[in-house]
Amino acid sequence: MVAVHAATLDARRQASIARVEATLAALFDARPAASPRLEAAMRHGLLGGGKRLRPLLVYLAGRALGADDAALDAPAAAVELIHAYSLIHDDLPAMDDDAMRRGQPTVHRAFDEATAILAGDALQALAFELIAADDHPRLGAMIRALAGASGRNGMVAGQALDMAAVGQPADAAALATMHAHKTGALIEASVRLGGLAAVDENDPRLEALERYARAIGLAFQVHDDVLDVIGDSTTLGKITGADAVRHKPTYPGLLGLDAARGKARALIDDAIAALAPLGEPAAPLADLAHYIIERDH
Amino acid sequence: MVAVHAATLDARRQASIARVEATLAALFDARPAASPRLEAAMRHGLLGGGKRLRPLLVYLAGRALGADDAALDAPAAAVELIHAYSLIHDDLPAMDDDAMRRGQPTVHRAFDEATAILAGDALQALAFELIAADDHPRLGAMIRALAGASGRNGMVAGQALDMAAVGQPADAAALATMHAHKTGALIEASVRLGGLAAVDENDPRLEALERYARAIGLAFQVHDDVLDVIGDSTTLGKITGADAVRHKPTYPGLLGLDAARGKARALIDDAIAALAPLGEPAAPLADLAHYIIERDH
Repeated sequence: MVAVHAATLDARRQASIARVEATLAALFDARPAASPRLEAAMRHGLLGGGKRLRPLLVYLAGRALGADDAALDAPAAAVELIHAYSLIHDDLPAMDDDAMRRGQPTVHRAFDEATAILAGDALQALAFELIAADDHPRLGAMIRALAGASGRNGMVAGQALDMAAVGQPADAAALATMHAHKTGALIEASVRLGGLAAVDENDPRLEALERYARAIGLAFQVHDDVLDVIGDSTTLGKITGADAVRHKPTYPGLLGLDAARGKARALIDDAIAALAPLGEPAAPLADLAHYIIERDH
Repeated sequence: MVAVHAATLDARRQASIARVEATLAALFDARPAASPRLEAAMRHGLLGGGKRLRPLLVYLAGRALGADDAALDAPAAAVELIHAYSLIHDDLPAMDDDAMRRGQPTVHRAFDEATAILAGDALQALAFELIAADDHPRLGAMIRALAGASGRNGMVAGQALDMAAVGQPADAAALATMHAHKTGALIEASVRLGGLAAVDENDPRLEALERYARAIGLAFQVHDDVLDVIGDSTTLGKITGADAVRHKPTYPGLLGLDAARGKARALIDDAIAALAPLGEPAAPLADLAHYIIERDH
């Protein structure tokens, strides 16, 4: 049964990823670029693969509330544009100083630092341009969700908190606050955007989707921290991963490996409980929640 | 008569600047900041003065088409948020590497490089969040105008072209293309946003406003280049300014000082001619056009 669910989820993921890849690639076909170098850097940062988790959440949440896939293509691509810009900027020498991402040189290595900053800036603008390409009746709520999750009360604040936390002592509450901003906010916005394609801003099912998203967003991070430990060392419980080397606080570091795994499982239970008001159409979101803590990369 | 116009324009500018300063300052009063350091950097880059030309254009263009000031506050502040973020990023070491702006340390000097990148990112998101705070009936057109002017077909492309032009030979056409993207696009978007607060997307008066804006935008740059020459040297015609030191192409460098001044005057004539269909309510825009090439800083 788990295997059947996993196979179904995988087929659904592949179909959704194909949709968002097509939407993203088409953004670069339209006309001659004002600055070809800038656009090449945008493409490098955007089209180099990735799990496309946020677009998948837009599709699954939207379908759970009855939206058509065609109405979900723009918001699905928009959340990925925001995510891609944030990775380009996070990789910069002044931030995490990463040379490689997904087996490719990071944008500032493949191009240069100025071009990487500008490519990120342009991808952010493109996210808002894309979502506003049609006059959707709930466009205002969509822009507020995306901009609110991206900025000083969301993702950007999370990156600022993360930078400040390197080498600092932290507790689990501070770590949860950082993750809730850095990745949680955009994951919540993804399900909200999917839902807004189908229902009004005050529909209570949006709150159910956001409770789900908060739980899987944190579970995703906890499991990432767990993978960072067990991926680098066969001796479970020994902190030898990249996060430890960078002196970044992690859940296994704070709680121990077994407690961190237990926390991730409890969060997935919370996420699935939050979906109860949505009934059977939300089953794919429940499958995705399981996948979040079962993946090995 | 010129003196009377100048005095009226100055009073109008002061009142509009006071409105936009109040809107911008209020953005930081609402609630505790997720990252106080990030918000301090945003304030430093945003509230440190400046001509506030773009918000003034939103107000003057909106009033010319009959919009209330209250409907113009959000778009006026939004264009300044975009402008402020672009200055923070342009000042970074990887770009123009400027230590001072408006008599203050630049954001990366007052804080650090990572915080400056993030402050710019958050100011961009805030621009879109602010303009979407109300469900304006023409919100879609407003977001498209702002995002389109800000990104890969506008301001960001212009900065990319400007970076590529340093030390390179250029002609007047390439210089005009760079400026049309780097500063012209957002100046055009400013009058369009003001107009959209009053009229529909297909109203022909928007095109008149944009013709006006294209002309003053380029005149502004030509006059800036002229000031860079005559501000640094009492010997007119000798290129001794900062642009020449940086090997950036300029209009006086390409055309000679007298021809550059003539070009600026001709552009202002074009701008004023474009306003004809708008009649008397556009008189303040004509006054502003004169001011653009009469200012000495």
